[in-house]
Amino acid sequence: MTLKIDGERLIGDLRKLAEFGKLGTGVARIAYSDVDMEARAWFQDRLNDAGLDARLDRVGNVIGTTPGADHAVLIGSHTDTVPAGGWLDGAMGAVYGLEIARAAIEQGMADSHAVDVVAFQDEEGTYLPCIGSMAICGEANETDIAAAESPAGEKLTDALSRCGLQSQQDWRIDPDRHVAFLEAHIEQGPRLEADGKRLGLVTGIVGIRRFALRFDGQADHAGTTPMALRKDAGRAAFQLGMMAHAAFQADGGEETVWNIGKADLIPGAANVVPSAAEMIVEFRDLSEQTLDKLEARLGHLVDKCAAATNTTASLTRTAVLPPSPMTPAMTAHLAAAADAAGEASMTMPSGAGHDAMILARHLPTAMLFVPSIGGRSHDIVEDTAEEDIILGCQVMANAVGRILA
Amino acid sequence: MTLKIDGERLIGDLRKLAEFGKLGTGVARIAYSDVDMEARAWFQDRLNDAGLDARLDRVGNVIGTTPGADHAVLIGSHTDTVPAGGWLDGAMGAVYGLEIARAAIEQGMADSHAVDVVAFQDEEGTYLPCIGSMAICGEANETDIAAAESPAGEKLTDALSRCGLQSQQDWRIDPDRHVAFLEAHIEQGPRLEADGKRLGLVTGIVGIRRFALRFDGQADHAGTTPMALRKDAGRAAFQLGMMAHAAFQADGGEETVWNIGKADLIPGAANVVPSAAEMIVEFRDLSEQTLDKLEARLGHLVDKCAAATNTTASLTRTAVLPPSPMTPAMTAHLAAAADAAGEASMTMPSGAGHDAMILARHLPTAMLFVPSIGGRSHDIVEDTAEEDIILGCQVMANAVGRILA
Repeated sequence: MTLKIDGERLIGDLRKLAEFGKLGTGVARIAYSDVDMEARAWFQDRLNDAGLDARLDRVGNVIGTTPGADHAVLIGSHTDTVPAGGWLDGAMGAVYGLEIARAAIEQGMADSHAVDVVAFQDEEGTYLPCIGSMAICGEANETDIAAAESPAGEKLTDALSRCGLQSQQDWRIDPDRHVAFLEAHIEQGPRLEADGKRLGLVTGIVGIRRFALRFDGQADHAGTTPMALRKDAGRAAFQLGMMAHAAFQADGGEETVWNIGKADLIPGAANVVPSAAEMIVEFRDLSEQTLDKLEARLGHLVDKCAAATNTTASLTRTAVLPPSPMTPAMTAHLAAAADAAGEASMTMPSGAGHDAMILARHLPTAMLFVPSIGGRSHDIVEDTAEEDIILGCQVMANAVGRILA
Repeated sequence: MTLKIDGERLIGDLRKLAEFGKLGTGVARIAYSDVDMEARAWFQDRLNDAGLDARLDRVGNVIGTTPGADHAVLIGSHTDTVPAGGWLDGAMGAVYGLEIARAAIEQGMADSHAVDVVAFQDEEGTYLPCIGSMAICGEANETDIAAAESPAGEKLTDALSRCGLQSQQDWRIDPDRHVAFLEAHIEQGPRLEADGKRLGLVTGIVGIRRFALRFDGQADHAGTTPMALRKDAGRAAFQLGMMAHAAFQADGGEETVWNIGKADLIPGAANVVPSAAEMIVEFRDLSEQTLDKLEARLGHLVDKCAAATNTTASLTRTAVLPPSPMTPAMTAHLAAAADAAGEASMTMPSGAGHDAMILARHLPTAMLFVPSIGGRSHDIVEDTAEEDIILGCQVMANAVGRILA
């Protein structure tokens, strides 16, 4: 006998949750806002109504545990959003947990299909990225918590007090109980749509290396200074930009992505030779070896461009996130569940960060993607076909039975 | 017999003029400021003391005419400065006129070496660039004057009233009297110094073509969007920047200069593929043909880079200044005078604009450059060796005799 989720109820709960902070077709529900805390109270009520034991923990995660079971799959994602986000990002993965746990209890399968549910707090980093998942894994750092504040200037500790969370208890994952963590999420990219697939099996969350790059030359009058006497930092930046794109394409893997998202010329006037150029360069890949290779290549190119333009350069690492591979055995359960549903899936890395990145360090972990229409996310136009949302939840429900078998 | 200028007196007058608006080693004497008008009154007094008939005209030029002569060489430059400028820029060329006219009267040579003198107003364009030289050439446009205002928001017409200039008379160049216009100026670039020369003979003032260039692509998540599906406007900008520098070098003349002084990526975030890039591209040359060739080449490159990156591009002319050739016969007089002084000179274009650009449309015109130490100008560190300043003035005095012979 197979656990059967209720697609209509799933969509109904998602639409209801999207009313909290509704912003046109999207949602504005930033972490620890009044509307975020109201949504959490609503979610906690739904978990209790379904027969779970639900509570808020000390950082504002909503946790629901299925009573009576010795082993459970933990399912969830985050319900906070960016300032003008979509209705599914994060929320979908949390409501999958609710629906699968609820269906298991209703259908008397809560022993073989027991699910604990979590709606993480502040994955988007309004105060401190992934504070919710770090807290339940024992990774939350008191120094970081004390230093964290929102772009509006509120300290995280003040936000926790304002939300009345200081009286709540910490909650931790339990390796004896939790055999796996599963997170469903919208893809936030165009690959599933481009390949005509409805399910993505995440091989891992890519590592990121990000660099601040600065070329220093000399400001000169662009009319009176002969070309040969210039130290044009802008010219160095153009060379580096073009050559880095070509080098990363040649040396990266099939899944490698990179971006030069910022390139400011200083002073930025039509008739002044740029005295400096400030760039941000980043690349992402699942392989540390590939990241190492690209970093070495970038360093060589920077030196080459500086030498060619009579400028000096400094290249500084500003962010290093190691790759987070998912657990192949868990991903295999999702793949088998997709096959059993007669639906072709595809494997892919996640180019964006997720709470699963933290959980994967502590529990066998897998992620399931459903298609983002037009690849759009972090925008109120974000959307996914309802039948894809329902399919993803049913496949995850099937995987729970396989994992606990 | 040769007209002999007084080098010590010349330097003394320049140092005295530099007291008006003194700012460290430089000068702040923006057009129509109190200190600018005080400096003009002082200059008018010096001209009258020297035996010239001196007056202010309706836009604030100081004009001095040598009485008794039927023909004269007009000599001058501007005495206004940029907000934090050097002590010589402009001022030197005006004081050359004073010293040469004064020496001619003193030495009884005012018939064969008659000089009229002008200290132009607002060459730097605080209100309206070159309004002084345009006014004496009959090129001042009442619509432009009515519309002009300073960065501080004062209308030019209000500045003229504030300075009490409305009661002054217009003054115009007289082709029957003025056989030539000569302007001396600091080079504002490093070429004389680099070549070890003390005198530059200006072949012309370069034409300028300036363009606003925009690439439009698509903002995408830099982690989740595969490289092949991107429309990266930043990548287009880097390609264009690198290829334009190479193409202008290949297709430009020996004296061609160009600059890409601005390149903004939008939105400018580390993890967002740039949706747009806004650049300013300009090039300068004495030849319209070269300017045409580079403009055509730029257009082709823009199309090529847009096509290669799946972006769209728009290229808009934002400024077109035609080249202003100097009068070869007049430049030849300066060259002969330099030779007679036993001093090697070099020919060069002026990459910056000057009042001579306006005068050249109405009178035979030549310009003489003296070296800028370190190529610096429009800065309080601007300087020229005193012996170079004196040499330039003596050479110009010699040229006056040749021109009026």
